[in-house]
Amino acid sequence: MNVIEVPDAADERLADYVRLRDVNLRKSLESEHGLFMAEGEKVVRRALRAGYRPRSFLLTPRRRAALADLVEQMTAPVYVVAEEVAEALVGFDLHRGALASFERKPLPGMDQVLDGARRVVVLEDIVDHTNVGAIFRSAAGLGIDAIVLAPRCADPLYRRSVKVSMGAVFTLPYTRLHDWYGGLADLRERGFQLLAMTPAPGSVLLADALAAADGDRHALLLGTEGDGLSSRWMEQADVRVRIPMVQRDVDSLNVTAAAAIACYEMVRGHSVDRADAGTV
Amino acid sequence: MNVIEVPDAADERLADYVRLRDVNLRKSLESEHGLFMAEGEKVVRRALRAGYRPRSFLLTPRRRAALADLVEQMTAPVYVVAEEVAEALVGFDLHRGALASFERKPLPGMDQVLDGARRVVVLEDIVDHTNVGAIFRSAAGLGIDAIVLAPRCADPLYRRSVKVSMGAVFTLPYTRLHDWYGGLADLRERGFQLLAMTPAPGSVLLADALAAADGDRHALLLGTEGDGLSSRWMEQADVRVRIPMVQRDVDSLNVTAAAAIACYEMVRGHSVDRADAGTV
Ligand SMILES: C[S@@+](CC[C@H](N)C(=O)[O-])C[C@H]1O[C@@H](n2cnc3c(N)ncnc32)[C@H](O)[C@@H]1O
Ligand SMILES: C[S@@+](CC[C@H](N)C(=O)[O-])C[C@H]1O[C@@H](n2cnc3c(N)ncnc32)[C@H](O)[C@@H]1O
Repeated sequence: MNVIEVPDAADERLADYVRLRDVNLRKSLESEHGLFMAEGEKVVRRALRAGYRPRSFLLTPRRRAALADLVEQMTAPVYVVAEEVAEALVGFDLHRGALASFERKPLPGMDQVLDGARRVVVLEDIVDHTNVGAIFRSAAGLGIDAIVLAPRCADPLYRRSVKVSMGAVFTLPYTRLHDWYGGLADLRERGFQLLAMTPAPGSVLLADALAAADGDRHALLLGTEGDGLSSRWMEQADVRVRIPMVQRDVDSLNVTAAAAIACYEMVRGHSVDRADAGTV
Repeated sequence: MNVIEVPDAADERLADYVRLRDVNLRKSLESEHGLFMAEGEKVVRRALRAGYRPRSFLLTPRRRAALADLVEQMTAPVYVVAEEVAEALVGFDLHRGALASFERKPLPGMDQVLDGARRVVVLEDIVDHTNVGAIFRSAAGLGIDAIVLAPRCADPLYRRSVKVSMGAVFTLPYTRLHDWYGGLADLRERGFQLLAMTPAPGSVLLADALAAADGDRHALLLGTEGDGLSSRWMEQADVRVRIPMVQRDVDSLNVTAAAAIACYEMVRGHSVDRADAGTV
């Protein structure tokens, strides 16, 4: 165990942790150094379990014991900093804080992510990290096989996404399309039926579309928070599907709610945990 | 139209809008004065349409035109303040801001909210305003009849809830139990089957429970973000139900995802918009 007390927030060794709330700074810092942040004991443990290599840990004295069992075998440095130093460094009160900086792995390719996958979710330009994290949590929990991101979709390994996903971003395989315009063709060639999720009229009920589908490979396309799916992706899809809504002044569901329902519907009937239904 | 330019953030007439990010201050200020905040043009319009009485409007010069058609017939004052003044007042950049302060209405009683209702959602102690708002949006959109809140559940009319709900808090009827311990008995006496939502083992699949239910009044109980439903409410329920999950390091769904799926499942088969399915 390599514990180092660092008294000064400006110490270079703490550079990974600087100004965690400054989204633009963090984006460039993290991509430049190929790192990401995990926050909270549970999430840090999950990152380790998923095989990510830690660059360092940051703990306040009060939390020093929390990860003791883990960091004991680690060679990565464990920086212990006073609460005021932590706050000056990261930009907020870290009272219950355990933070760790990890190295990213190279993103797997489409083959690796999609071989054997039957039910996938494709996110067009979801720009909000909270939404991306929430979708990963639901998709992983409900039994989706993989997620595919459009080029401009927000980063699942950004601190906020990681946290909201409760670490599901570490275990649910995902990759990113290089090509927004032509990218869906690759999925279609692999035998996925492309279902464009949209609240707009002129669509089929999601449950009916899934029941009517031939084949057992489905890809649900979800659109951005504001305008929904692009017209290009709408055209590329095999079918447009909707979750039925009543019109009580609500035009659409939040994308995370739509994703949860769609994942549930896609997995239903595929007996995820019917196996344990007998134990009730 | 009663437009008043106010140059000073400390002006007493602006008191409704002070420090909007200071949750504790706002909670006591808003309950003391019986007011709530609506933010953004769409939401302000929805509050007006739902019959809430405005106390005043706050606009920056750039947004002055946005609500012109509406505020024209209003007697409530329209305060126009420079962007810097608005920022000093509310505590953040209001660039696209339209804000309005409204009077609350007395909360309706259980009779008023539940007469004729068949599908209701009951929130135990959901403490996060974002989650409460998100649940209202999904529930309203999917066709739930009413929401019942436990005494300690977060306020649906808090600014953040209102915003995230996209105004669904104005149109979906809701009320609050006075009595946490005994409150569910009232629902049961009204003929509602009480379904406790929990990811824990030893529960029935939600879809099976709904299919097996006699009667057509169902109340879904949702628990708090951390610990879930209290043991008291679990005991009081008629049946414990779960959404099937695979165990890929995810123990539970976020409460808003669980709510969306549960509302969808509860309404399914009750032909919400089968009526328009023919128009496809
Ligand atoms: C907030 S919605 C975008 C709304 C946008 N105005 C539109 O018409 O698509 C974000 C995404 O959630 C999904 N979504 C929301 N409500 C839906 C519904 N009722 N049925 C199907 N998908 C829905 C769609 O994929 C949509 O692109
Ligand atoms: C984040 S969960 C709480 C988890 C808590 N550890 C528990 O065991 O209930 C918040 C709420 O969402 C609902 N919920 C989450 N996942 C669920 C699932 N798979 N089935 C049924 N309800 C679920 C429950 O009502 C729960 O109280």
